[in-house]
Amino acid sequence: MFSNATKLTVIAERLLQDRLIDMLYAGGAKGHTLFDGSGKGEHGDRVGDRASVIHDFTIVQIDAVFGKDHQARKVAEEIAEDVFIDYAGIVYLSPVEVIRAKRF
Amino acid sequence: MFSNATKLTVIAERLLQDRLIDMLYAGGAKGHTLFDGSGKGEHGDRVGDRASVIHDFTIVQIDAVFGKDHQARKVAEEIAEDVFIDYAGIVYLSPVEVIRAKRF
Amino acid sequence: MFSNATKLTVIAERLLQDRLIDMLYAGGAKGHTLFDGSGKGEHGDRVGDRASVIHDFTIVQIDAVFGKDHQARKVAEEIAEDVFIDYAGIVYLSPVEVIRAKRF
Repeated sequence: MFSNATKLTVIAERLLQDRLIDMLYAGGAKGHTLFDGSGKGEHGDRVGDRASVIHDFTIVQIDAVFGKDHQARKVAEEIAEDVFIDYAGIVYLSPVEVIRAKRF
Repeated sequence: MFSNATKLTVIAERLLQDRLIDMLYAGGAKGHTLFDGSGKGEHGDRVGDRASVIHDFTIVQIDAVFGKDHQARKVAEEIAEDVFIDYAGIVYLSPVEVIRAKRF
Repeated sequence: MFSNATKLTVIAERLLQDRLIDMLYAGGAKGHTLFDGSGKGEHGDRVGDRASVIHDFTIVQIDAVFGKDHQARKVAEEIAEDVFIDYAGIVYLSPVEVIRAKRF
């Protein structure tokens, strides 16, 4: 009854929220959740020479569970390459098991 | 010192919070955490012909780590079958490693 | 393009927040996220004879992704041994995959 699926988690500054959610749905997500938090981390590659500068910032964590692993990977790569070059943030994938795989 | 365990995550509308938490403890959970968030997703099966209708809603995410994998699976199935037939929401399992397995 | 990494999650009473974050960075973390929530769980070992006493409490969940698994394990053990002997809380590890491993 359980099926393997892939959860994509993206953590970013709040101003990126709508853009990231659009990218998730364009890439095949059928739902998402968003949580407000705070965080600390390094900036994107374009500010590479200041990469050791650490900033506090308010963040959002957005999760989406993909039934198709390759969709999750593609979206994660797009986010890393198109968004996190310029902005701080991280994206990662986690293995999960879901029920009723057709929903994902 | 690390032991395998299974984290159950359930994401649902807030009105289901108490019912879901009761189901977790009835199924063997020894603790839980709850976070407020927002989300978007498809409705439950009973509104199947409107399954493509997507609603925004405020949600809670409830996590519980089970030392016994079979307990986590049983509770996840109960939630999927008894609750998410009528209500929007998802439940999924994640592999984790814990310290002091007796606490879980 | 994806690399294996280890996410450390620690859930604790808010008063421990700064101490836990310091331990994460001392152990090699390059960033963290923090979320406010609520929870319920058993107390630490020192109150062992009252271990069945369950308390509600406001909590924080702090996540940090470590590129080096051994660093995550070491910090998790330190937290379990040095902090959660006296205070309620849990720490667990999850397998994740990241992009641009050098950031973690």
